[in-house]
Amino acid sequence: MSGLQSVINYIKEHDNYLILMHASPDGDTIGTACGLCGIIKRLGKKASVACADDIPAMYSRLVGDAVTCNFEVESIIAADVADVKLLGEYKSYAGKINLCIDHHVSNTGYADITYVDAESAAAAEILYDIAEQLGVKPDKYIAECIYTGISTDTGCFRFSNTTARTHYIAAQMLEAGIDIEEINRRLFETKSKSAIELERLVTNTLEYYCGGRVAVITVLRSMLDKTGASDEDIEGLSAFPRQIEGVIVGITLKESEEGGFKASVRTHPPADASELCRAFGGGGHLRASGCRIKGSEAEVKSALVKKAEELLSRHGL
Amino acid sequence: MSGLQSVINYIKEHDNYLILMHASPDGDTIGTACGLCGIIKRLGKKASVACADDIPAMYSRLVGDAVTCNFEVESIIAADVADVKLLGEYKSYAGKINLCIDHHVSNTGYADITYVDAESAAAAEILYDIAEQLGVKPDKYIAECIYTGISTDTGCFRFSNTTARTHYIAAQMLEAGIDIEEINRRLFETKSKSAIELERLVTNTLEYYCGGRVAVITVLRSMLDKTGASDEDIEGLSAFPRQIEGVIVGITLKESEEGGFKASVRTHPPADASELCRAFGGGGHLRASGCRIKGSEAEVKSALVKKAEELLSRHGL
Repeated sequence: MSGLQSVINYIKEHDNYLILMHASPDGDTIGTACGLCGIIKRLGKKASVACADDIPAMYSRLVGDAVTCNFEVESIIAADVADVKLLGEYKSYAGKINLCIDHHVSNTGYADITYVDAESAAAAEILYDIAEQLGVKPDKYIAECIYTGISTDTGCFRFSNTTARTHYIAAQMLEAGIDIEEINRRLFETKSKSAIELERLVTNTLEYYCGGRVAVITVLRSMLDKTGASDEDIEGLSAFPRQIEGVIVGITLKESEEGGFKASVRTHPPADASELCRAFGGGGHLRASGCRIKGSEAEVKSALVKKAEELLSRHGL
Repeated sequence: MSGLQSVINYIKEHDNYLILMHASPDGDTIGTACGLCGIIKRLGKKASVACADDIPAMYSRLVGDAVTCNFEVESIIAADVADVKLLGEYKSYAGKINLCIDHHVSNTGYADITYVDAESAAAAEILYDIAEQLGVKPDKYIAECIYTGISTDTGCFRFSNTTARTHYIAAQMLEAGIDIEEINRRLFETKSKSAIELERLVTNTLEYYCGGRVAVITVLRSMLDKTGASDEDIEGLSAFPRQIEGVIVGITLKESEEGGFKASVRTHPPADASELCRAFGGGGHLRASGCRIKGSEAEVKSALVKKAEELLSRHGL
């Protein structure tokens, strides 16, 4: 692992950059790659970005013509990519990556120069330092890139990875005149038609147990087939049962392709989600855990609810 | 209207405070009142808070024993209260309010000393200045009060009232060690059982028109009666149709008690919501407007959709 100064020196001394994002790109890899591209161009150098997968429509404005590469690439940077495997079909660049800028503590150090700041909520936070060290004051475009990365990875300043520094950087991006209401509407308030349809079907399965302290929703294969919902659409549903007032244990059951169910358990204090899941050979975090259970929908539900009841009664609930 | 120095002088020179919130209390009036109470107590003075309405459960931890008043009140402050009418049954205090701290440009100036900073996204932002001027460094409790007010009034830093200063203040509140993930979960991720049930019924009414560019949901009186949903629960629904990918005009129809429907229209560029609503004698903002239309559900829906279609076709959509 290298220090920030190695990154600055490398950028100053080279030109003609290709900046790679990870596959299944999110706002942080896109914001970091595009923001860095903008910073490098401000130095009078050439840069472009690339991703093995399609860029989701909500980020297309950010990427714009940064994907156009009308020069011979001499330097390759990876942005927010913890492992070469995450480059998708661009993992063919393995061994040729000169610089990697990342915030994942799990970074495998595959680049010649790897800079990891695991304290940063988003890789885009690191761009702020890079811009400053290179004497580039973020313009509106660079500011939107940095803000997008930060907002995406912190759930708009909601998650516990948000630090005081995150807010200080956001403040300075706002000073560049970006329209955060519009940016965040695009990032957080757009749902696909299939996600909406899946939500509708799944909400109809909502059941309460233990006087409303346990809530269960069920996602059947037939619902996924009917709506064409993606994995991402399903992922968001797990948060739903716990959001209901009075619910302490929220359970999302997903029918597996190979039979049986995958349960995602989210809890509020004092319930321990990992304890509940360990009883079925699973595990995870204190408030978010998972397990796989064989059996029919009724059997699986009854087993989980019984265990949840035991857990709550031990807390006098 | 007075300057901040008058506020500081008043607080320094008096004691035994009652701090009033507005009725139907939200996170900003609660955070500002409780935070100010905490600041005044740190000066070795006595203070308590009061609200004409019940404090919602999600804020009960913040209020705690600040409502206990075991001293004779000598000074009355109103926090985030633009008009004495908003004090609910406490409007009997009209004429006796010594100090008002607010961020509403519409403040009627009913207090002896009124300090309004309309640039502040939340009244709680003003507390930051007050604490600083009084030499009180926010502890964890005061920081949580200020953060709660700010986060509530900016939709967790999403709305356009969020400024660079908002983020600078948030940064300093985080430095006091508050748990923002838990605070924001409480503020934004808790839904009442009746809201969930209403959402379920209403989502089942979702219809698309104009190739998915117009989406309509319908809230019938029978749904409100069945679920016991509150006005607040209905309010949140209006944002839903526009959140769907590809939708440019989102319409929420609410059956009126007196017959006919109230339509809430939300649009994305280039559609003008106020133009659509003006055609039915209503109006509002560019992207959020409303109108009342007489007729059956089918008639009202068909009239609105026809007008929306005309509007979109003029933009070549």
